[in-house]
Amino acid sequence: MSPRPVSFLSDFGHADEFVGVVHGVIARIAPEVRVVDVGHGVPRGDVMAGSLSLLRAIQYLPGGVVLAVVDPGVGTDRRAVAVETEWGHFVGPDNGLLAPAVAMVGGARRAVSLEAAGFRLPAAGSTFDGRDVFAPAAAVLASGEADLDDLGPEIDPSGLVPQLLPLVEHGDGVVEGQVWWVDGFGNAQTNVTPEDLARLGVTPGDEVRLRVTLQWHTLRWGSGYQGTGPLVHTDSHGMMAIALPGGRADEALGLRPGLSIGFSSPTAPGS
Amino acid sequence: MSPRPVSFLSDFGHADEFVGVVHGVIARIAPEVRVVDVGHGVPRGDVMAGSLSLLRAIQYLPGGVVLAVVDPGVGTDRRAVAVETEWGHFVGPDNGLLAPAVAMVGGARRAVSLEAAGFRLPAAGSTFDGRDVFAPAAAVLASGEADLDDLGPEIDPSGLVPQLLPLVEHGDGVVEGQVWWVDGFGNAQTNVTPEDLARLGVTPGDEVRLRVTLQWHTLRWGSGYQGTGPLVHTDSHGMMAIALPGGRADEALGLRPGLSIGFSSPTAPGS
Amino acid sequence: MSPRPVSFLSDFGHADEFVGVVHGVIARIAPEVRVVDVGHGVPRGDVMAGSLSLLRAIQYLPGGVVLAVVDPGVGTDRRAVAVETEWGHFVGPDNGLLAPAVAMVGGARRAVSLEAAGFRLPAAGSTFDGRDVFAPAAAVLASGEADLDDLGPEIDPSGLVPQLLPLVEHGDGVVEGQVWWVDGFGNAQTNVTPEDLARLGVTPGDEVRLRVTLQWHTLRWGSGYQGTGPLVHTDSHGMMAIALPGGRADEALGLRPGLSIGFSSPTAPGS
Repeated sequence: MSPRPVSFLSDFGHADEFVGVVHGVIARIAPEVRVVDVGHGVPRGDVMAGSLSLLRAIQYLPGGVVLAVVDPGVGTDRRAVAVETEWGHFVGPDNGLLAPAVAMVGGARRAVSLEAAGFRLPAAGSTFDGRDVFAPAAAVLASGEADLDDLGPEIDPSGLVPQLLPLVEHGDGVVEGQVWWVDGFGNAQTNVTPEDLARLGVTPGDEVRLRVTLQWHTLRWGSGYQGTGPLVHTDSHGMMAIALPGGRADEALGLRPGLSIGFSSPTAPGS
Repeated sequence: MSPRPVSFLSDFGHADEFVGVVHGVIARIAPEVRVVDVGHGVPRGDVMAGSLSLLRAIQYLPGGVVLAVVDPGVGTDRRAVAVETEWGHFVGPDNGLLAPAVAMVGGARRAVSLEAAGFRLPAAGSTFDGRDVFAPAAAVLASGEADLDDLGPEIDPSGLVPQLLPLVEHGDGVVEGQVWWVDGFGNAQTNVTPEDLARLGVTPGDEVRLRVTLQWHTLRWGSGYQGTGPLVHTDSHGMMAIALPGGRADEALGLRPGLSIGFSSPTAPGS
Repeated sequence: MSPRPVSFLSDFGHADEFVGVVHGVIARIAPEVRVVDVGHGVPRGDVMAGSLSLLRAIQYLPGGVVLAVVDPGVGTDRRAVAVETEWGHFVGPDNGLLAPAVAMVGGARRAVSLEAAGFRLPAAGSTFDGRDVFAPAAAVLASGEADLDDLGPEIDPSGLVPQLLPLVEHGDGVVEGQVWWVDGFGNAQTNVTPEDLARLGVTPGDEVRLRVTLQWHTLRWGSGYQGTGPLVHTDSHGMMAIALPGGRADEALGLRPGLSIGFSSPTAPGS
């Protein structure tokens, strides 16, 4: 089998050498394997944010191995796992980080707990599993040097920790959702879809009412970043998002990840 | 044709997975193409800063394809282009970002508007052209899978949006310029050259008068970062720059990109 | 000789194109050489921090060439060097940056001063040796295009600038040390080892007294990041470190690099 790329996501940031050390471990074990850095700016320890980032990215990554490490439970007894899917392998902590992307590509076929000593680096402490456990596993899966079974005992994929993504609720002329993500440009992605707004009778080009906390705003459902003033639009992942052309929507409207928002038709009563 | 490298510059930053997704798209389309990250820390939406960064870098990049995305007009009707030069190809928005580097390597020979649907990724929204339009074009140009003509209708290179870089003005014993760039170490590069100072009768080792806003300072034209206190020197791109060995010149003298500055001889009247 | 990878560490940060330009220079000279970014977030000009980062990383990097640039003396008369070790080559400024990692892999066998004009890029200024001096040297050593001797006159390895790492002192029931590193998660690594604590009669699972500046705290010697509240543990490099599961130990206890700390047994008098 020819070597497959490793796509690597973490919350390690760029202040320290953590990302580089993981690259080094992979390069030592599997020099022929290419590593694509998906991103390392996930807010530290924020498993939900990491899982959403991986979910947004997965369809654009080359088939092979995903190595994802947002792992506030490192050094505790949470499991380290490798999961086999139709798309390829996922390696990381069993804390829900991998779950949405795994589901997106069709779900887990098999999974193992990364316990085989021969594929872990010996280390004084137990707090850098990215280096000692996950990187070696990703490297040998990518190079083909090992099969899933070699890495540890098989576990029931249905027992993997899920990630509970917040769902929208359709109420009386209002769809209740939340902000999922604010990107570095200040754009706020919600968990509301164009189909959710269609159920309110709102379509592209219409005005729509947006509730942020208790305050209602009237915005246009625009196209891309045309015009001035805040707008809602279908973003590059197909979700309803709030943007401010030439500015930061998050600052203009007080948006942040996890904040409850609501949409309604401008003609709905009470909004 | 053997694959050529893609040199990738953007204002995407490292907080999100944008850079990684672009890498992923290229790796999916052209697994054999190497991507060199020129940098992704251009101030968001600052086309001028991005064009200067690319201008400083271009002579050090491997011949092939430049992929540059600083694109505040994404989602509007600005054109997406690929430009052919003697050096290689440039792919990005038609907003002046590419212009100084293209001029540096001899100018555009041909250009196309990136409209061919077969080389764009289908997407719900129109706000991530780096992923959906530019990355695929760069990938197929780098791999040789497509020629320029395949990517869209040819456009007149002379109609590409230029970048107007500020020029110095020689007045009465004073050369008027501006700060082009403050790097992460606090060094301030100006648009003034050693030749401009020679016209004032100032040569290396001399003292020179520097005006920042309304205030004049007397500095030594030093060599490298020798000595203490602020100095002016010829920086690694051949431009006059202001530095403070062991410290930050920007903070010491209140320098920032775009600020007007002036140089004069210490013996000039009125300075 | 087949090409070897270059492992690249610097304090260049990601705001500018410095890192990308160095990658570009290597790709132009030696297209077949892979570059592993160890990290570029070393505090600017902090040679000690850079040397410790390289020391922590070196055993995990693929044999080949280390290119390390934390170089506050660039543009002065400090030497630029390449050092040969059993592990491979180290290229960088002769300011102590390389010394701990070189010692870790068995010490310098030979060294040269990077003076050969044929392996330096011509440049207007002398303030970007990473681009003009170090990158070309690393590239040709990695590709095998040049031998150490080709790069400049041989110098006495014993004359290389050392890095004086602070040692612990064992006093009257107290081991005096300091904080070496605070990582991006807020974990504080000290220069104290488990063996140092064993000399105090303190072993894993015990309580231990930690002095930060003048204040004493009683902490548990825990395992990994189990539990709540600050703890001391053996970190992933085998050093005693202070962590706060789910939080930042640096903020909780006022820890920063260089700060003096002390450990004692909880039963020691006067602590």
